[in-house]
Order: sequence, then structure tokens, then C-alpha cells
Amino acid sequence: MRPDTTQGQQTVADVGEFGLIRRVTDGRAQPAPTLLGPGDDAAVVAAADGRVVASTDVLVDGVHFRLDWSTPDQVGRKAVAANLADIAAMGAVPTGLLVALVCPASTPVEVIDQLSTGMWAEAARARVGIVGGDMASADTMVISITALGDLQGRKPVTRGGALPGDLVAVAGRLGWSAAGLAVLGRGFRSPVSVVGAHRAPEPTYAAGPQAADAGATAMIDVSDGLLADLAHIGVASNVAIDVRTDLIEVHQRLIDVASALGADPRHWVLTGGEDHALAATFPDPGAVPEGWRVVGTVARGNGVTVDGAPYEGTAGWQHWR
Amino acid sequence: MRPDTTQGQQTVADVGEFGLIRRVTDGRAQPAPTLLGPGDDAAVVAAADGRVVASTDVLVDGVHFRLDWSTPDQVGRKAVAANLADIAAMGAVPTGLLVALVCPASTPVEVIDQLSTGMWAEAARARVGIVGGDMASADTMVISITALGDLQGRKPVTRGGALPGDLVAVAGRLGWSAAGLAVLGRGFRSPVSVVGAHRAPEPTYAAGPQAADAGATAMIDVSDGLLADLAHIGVASNVAIDVRTDLIEVHQRLIDVASALGADPRHWVLTGGEDHALAATFPDPGAVPEGWRVVGTVARGNGVTVDGAPYEGTAGWQHWR
Repeated sequence: MRPDTTQGQQTVADVGEFGLIRRVTDGRAQPAPTLLGPGDDAAVVAAADGRVVASTDVLVDGVHFRLDWSTPDQVGRKAVAANLADIAAMGAVPTGLLVALVCPASTPVEVIDQLSTGMWAEAARARVGIVGGDMASADTMVISITALGDLQGRKPVTRGGALPGDLVAVAGRLGWSAAGLAVLGRGFRSPVSVVGAHRAPEPTYAAGPQAADAGATAMIDVSDGLLADLAHIGVASNVAIDVRTDLIEVHQRLIDVASALGADPRHWVLTGGEDHALAATFPDPGAVPEGWRVVGTVARGNGVTVDGAPYEGTAGWQHWR
Repeated sequence: MRPDTTQGQQTVADVGEFGLIRRVTDGRAQPAPTLLGPGDDAAVVAAADGRVVASTDVLVDGVHFRLDWSTPDQVGRKAVAANLADIAAMGAVPTGLLVALVCPASTPVEVIDQLSTGMWAEAARARVGIVGGDMASADTMVISITALGDLQGRKPVTRGGALPGDLVAVAGRLGWSAAGLAVLGRGFRSPVSVVGAHRAPEPTYAAGPQAADAGATAMIDVSDGLLADLAHIGVASNVAIDVRTDLIEVHQRLIDVASALGADPRHWVLTGGEDHALAATFPDPGAVPEGWRVVGTVARGNGVTVDGAPYEGTAGWQHWR
């Protein structure tokens, strides 16, 4: 299914840019926030609150995804999920997506069809549409997505509001995508539960506005790993954060997979990215909403520790490093 | 100045993703619509009108720009200009930009610095900020920009509202970028007026809202060439459009350049893209605002003609074709 190994299949070069855009957009139902969808110079999206939340993520074939490890459908789901999680992490509800896609002329049209099917499926989970985008040719497939969102009157929850004494809590899975990646890296395709989590995370977008309504003081999408992303909150808020392993429940499935691979499941939970859980800080235990799990505390100072000590391990992913 | 021929210069790999993002965003003044700028999971931009206009354009090194023909500063200006023109073409005022940039690890930091300087310069012309974005590594440089805009209470001017009897008018230059491209293609670097127009067009963004206020029935950004883009209006509005060459003034500079190259300057004006002029239809001559030039008429039927006859020439650019 890799774009460059097709033979006899119809390619994007056969269909052309406009034909491809039609395939990706025609006949798709646009939900309520889409006031003007694809096909014009720009889209028009509702921003009832008088503000719009906007975030852009870019994914590169071979760096962020591999079409021999994931189907195009899964890549599409994951690309959209990563972006929508950023909107949720501000306390906003997603309202629309714009997708820029570049790929080689030899890419089978089938790959683009599946990719867009995955994107639309994940968009539907969040009740938004793909309202616009652009396509062009290049040697490597690159997907750049911009997500828009509506704060519905909420104050945006930034990374910078955590205070000493706050509790740190998490909504959503941690470590599952990392476990799946480890499995795939060893050449296995199962267990499906962790491999599927890597291929297509399913963040609970509603947890973001829920946390904002509950009084979250800071929030972030866990895309680089819990410790790395809590470090972003720590720096932005000028506080120290301690994660307590006795509060972190490691799912039996992760323990089993780690045991089979000779790996440390807790390491996946602490440093694995791409599950797109949300991490947030709350002023007191009563403020932590249902579905959120307390995993640590905020104190004066700086740096992120685990059980009071520096964590020996990777500090998250940086490009070109 | 090509990214892959540097020696001894500091590269993006030396600086890393976060360092690079800081270089591109630190110390930049954000204008009023930017409620929350770069550095968090998402930006927050004013959308006073309760709607947001959004458009994404993607540019690929070697396809949309060449770093041996343009400086990174010029590429940055052009990339932003192309996007902001789409916002203007809806009748909206730009409010913010998000930039996704992928490039090889060997790209000199100086190239990225200049690219962002160009982007910020063009953004400043439109009084908007770069409010967010993303960066990653890839073999080829790809720039994906999303522009946001505010309709300020106006009805969006789509491609689909032209009516038989309308006049077609244009604001901004036509053919200058094509002339510059032709000059560069022959290995020349002057005259600066046309080469500069190719390297960094300077669209008059205000002409879009101006046309909307004047009652424009349809509007488009001329990015693929006048005839090709009028064809988009023709299809969307289900009308025929005739361009009259006696109404098109070809600037003496284009005539001179064409004469030197043995080319037809009128062909550049009719088919050259990338000047990012605006083309719009108006119900009567009194509605055509100052600075807009009538170039044709709308009638029942379909297709675009020049002086009543089909035009023999390229019909605009499609990727993978």
C-alpha cells in the first residue's frame, strides 16, 4: 500500500488536483458549524463566541507515520485526532478542519480515498467537517491540518496557569500508543489493542471543555509524553511538578506486552506520546471532574520529578534532534 | 543559499525544533486580533463577527518556489500573500496566520530566519500576526499556511453569485508575475519590476472588502490566471464570461519585456497567475469601485471567451497534470 510501489493502479497524477479534491469533499455532510464548506477561496465557520481557537499540526511520512505500519485510514484518523486534541486542550469545542496534503504523483488514488475516509471518520467523532484545504505534488507525503474551535464563552486554559498546591490529573490513555509502537518496531502486529492505539488514538475531546468548566488552571495535550508535556506546563506556569507512580495505574495489557518485549510499561506511561490524553491542573480534589485521574502535584520551584526524583529517560521528541 | 548546499553554517538540526520556533516567534509584536499567540496548544484569534473565514495554501520547494530564483524572504512574503489574498477574495479582512513548515535537517537557520522575516513583513502589510504553527523535518521544504479572516458583518462573496448582465472587473496587477517567471526562466535577473513581481507580489487586500461593500456578486483571487479563475466563477455561477482585450491595458513594461523575449504580453495578462489580483463581478458600472478595472461581461451560457471566441492557450495550472 506504499505510494511508491503501486503498479497498474490509478494514481493522483491520473486524477489531477481538482478531481482529487472532488473525491475528498463531494457528498460529505457538513455539520452545523460549517457555514461555507470546500470549493471557494476560503471557508466560513461559525465562531459564535466572538473568538476562534486555531492550531496547526504537520505530519511527515516516515517521521510521524509509516504507511507500511498503518493503513491510510488510520493515518487519517490519527492526523485529525492529534489536531482536535489541541483544540480540546484549550477548553474549546472543535468547529472545523482544513487539510493541506502533498504527495508524490505516483500515489494511488485509493490511498488518498482511504486517508480522507479516516479523516472524515475522526472528524465525525468530533462532529466537525473538513471545510477546506489544498493539495500539491512533492516527493514525500506531508499532511498539514489546521483545526478550529469555539470556546463557548470559556476562558482559554493555557499552559501557564498552574499554581503551587494544584493537583495534576489526566484524562485518556497513557502509554498505549508507545506500547503499540514498540510492538510494531519488533515486527509484530498484535496485540491489536495496543497496535490499534498507536495507529489511531481516540481522544475524548469532551474532557477538555469539561476540565475548563471544572476550573482547570492549566491544560495540555499529551503528544510528546506525560513528563515532557508536564514540563511545558511547569515552564509556562513557573512551577515544579511531581508525578507519583503510586497514583498511576498501569493497565494489565501494557504489563503483559512489556513483559513479552522485556520493556518497562511504566516508562511507556510516563514518556509515551501520541495517545493524545489531556493533562491538566486543578486547584483542589473536589474540582477534578469525573473521568480524570489525579497523577501528581504542583509545588513551588521548577522541573518535573517522579516520586520526588529526576526521571532517567527520554525527555520527549524534538525534530532535527 | 539552497538549503542543501550549506557548509559550516548553523543548521536547523543544530538549533532544534523548539529553538527554531523561538527564533521565528520571539519578540514579534502581535496585532489586536491576536488574543493568544504562539506557545500554547492553540492560538486564540478575535472573530468579532461570530464567523471566521479560513483558507489553507501549501507551497512546495521546486514546484511553487525555487530558493535559487527567490530569496527566502521573498518566498515567505509570497506564501503569506497567496493566502491572505484568498481571505480578501471572500470580502473579509485578515486576522491571523498559522504556518506549518517542514524542511531538511541541513537547512541553514539563516534560511528559516529570512523566510520568517518575509512572512512577518507581508503579515504586517495586512496587520495580522503569525499566531501559531508547527515545524518538522522532511527531505523537501513544504510550507503550509492557514489564514483566518473576519467578514465584519459582510455576506461572504463566493464564486457562485455572478449573474448574466454583470460586469467583470479586476483589482491589482495581471501578468507581471508571469513576465518575471519568463525572465527568470531565460536566466535573466532583470528588469527588477517584473522579477520582483514574481518573487513577491503585493496584493491590495483592502480591495476585497471594498468590492464586497460595493455589491460584488462573485469574487475570486487570481492565482491560476485570469481566464482559469474566471472559469471557476463561470462554473460556480453557471454563467458565460467574455473578456474583452480592448478593455485590458497592457503595461508598457510588459510589452517591452515580451518584445525582448519574443513573447506575447497579452498572454501573460490573460493566463499568468500568482499576481494575486482579485477578479469580481458587479451588477452595473456604477457599482464598480475605484481602483477596479472592467475587463469583461457576464452572459447566459457557460465557458470563458476572449473577444467572443475561445482562447487558444494554457487553461491554468493543476498539480500532477
